[in-house]
Amino acid sequence: MDNWLPTLITATPSEGYDLAVKLARIAVKKTQPDAAVRERLREVYEADANALIAVSQVVATHFATIAHANNHWRDA
Amino acid sequence: MDNWLPTLITATPSEGYDLAVKLARIAVKKTQPDAAVRERLREVYEADANALIAVSQVVATHFATIAHANNHWRDA
Amino acid sequence: MDNWLPTLITATPSEGYDLAVKLARIAVKKTQPDAAVRERLREVYEADANALIAVSQVVATHFATIAHANNHWRDA
Amino acid sequence: MDNWLPTLITATPSEGYDLAVKLARIAVKKTQPDAAVRERLREVYEADANALIAVSQVVATHFATIAHANNHWRDA
Amino acid sequence: MDNWLPTLITATPSEGYDLAVKLARIAVKKTQPDAAVRERLREVYEADANALIAVSQVVATHFATIAHANNHWRDA
Amino acid sequence: MDNWLPTLITATPSEGYDLAVKLARIAVKKTQPDAAVRERLREVYEADANALIAVSQVVATHFATIAHANNHWRDA
Repeated sequence: MDNWLPTLITATPSEGYDLAVKLARIAVKKTQPDAAVRERLREVYEADANALIAVSQVVATHFATIAHANNHWRDA
Repeated sequence: MDNWLPTLITATPSEGYDLAVKLARIAVKKTQPDAAVRERLREVYEADANALIAVSQVVATHFATIAHANNHWRDA
Repeated sequence: MDNWLPTLITATPSEGYDLAVKLARIAVKKTQPDAAVRERLREVYEADANALIAVSQVVATHFATIAHANNHWRDA
Repeated sequence: MDNWLPTLITATPSEGYDLAVKLARIAVKKTQPDAAVRERLREVYEADANALIAVSQVVATHFATIAHANNHWRDA
Repeated sequence: MDNWLPTLITATPSEGYDLAVKLARIAVKKTQPDAAVRERLREVYEADANALIAVSQVVATHFATIAHANNHWRDA
Repeated sequence: MDNWLPTLITATPSEGYDLAVKLARIAVKKTQPDAAVRERLREVYEADANALIAVSQVVATHFATIAHANNHWRDA
């Protein structure tokens, strides 16, 4: 995972949103590096409404950062 | 869901708020792609005060981003 | 609820705070459109300290957005 | 509570912090207007670590807004 | 605690971080003024992973404010 | 831990993200200084989906600050 995030610039808000989803996941990966454990946890939170809403909150926070980086795509 | 979010610009704050609600939902969709599971979870959190407040928090975060993108509709 | 939010501009911080409270409630309304269910949930969270604090958090997030929109009422 | 919040400007960061504490409490008041119920809830959350941390989070969010309004008291 | 917070300006990000930790604690102090109760609660949350993460979230929010106040120490 | 954080400037977003992970952990360290206790807690939250998502939220908040400090690496 050397330079896995070379830039926050994306062509569209849609791509920016996808990047936000990715950023939300990476912190989990860096805190729990064991892929087998993560897979097991994923099965749990995918079926838990509160966990999904919490994931959505993390995505919202990253999306704000990415939108800012892209000048909110106002020039697009 | 290719370019499902072409812009963050909306005509009014009301429309910006609706977009925030949409953005909050998309993260759940991307984390739990199975519509049947989501429908079942929706029945749960729609009747749970804490879950509804948590959804409202995600919407608030996205609304901040969208308001910023629209220069807080000050020119409207 | 067509154009229920024509502007984020308010005359005073007090009115801006009231608008933040309103924005926090609207997301609940849009997620749970049944007024009878919302009334029942309201009775629950009105008597729950953690839920009230969580509502206060949502209001704080919206108030930040509204304050920003009003240039923090510095010109008032 | 007509114009209970005429301004976000404070002389010092300390006063700004006190205002943030006040703003955090007002949302609870507006959601649960019954002072007797609030008093009972207060006894609960005052002795609950998680609730106190959650209150501190709300205060932090309001303090950010107030600091912004005061240009972070850089000119003080 | 008259003017306990005369400024948000710090010499380094490290000191800014320490100030953020302090600000997170003050809200708890102002909500629960009894030092003996706070000490008892501290023993609880110090050994609770979720509480520690929640504290870290409050610190992160205050650190953002302090970093902003210090122009992110870019001139340092 | 004297001047453990001399700057928020990083060469790339990837490095900025790593710094955000570090900042999230430091608050835990400062609140619970006993390394043995932290190690025991780590084993708990590493296997808990909700705790991992909460950590990811803290990282997202710090990443926003660091991205801002680096002008979102737009000049990179």
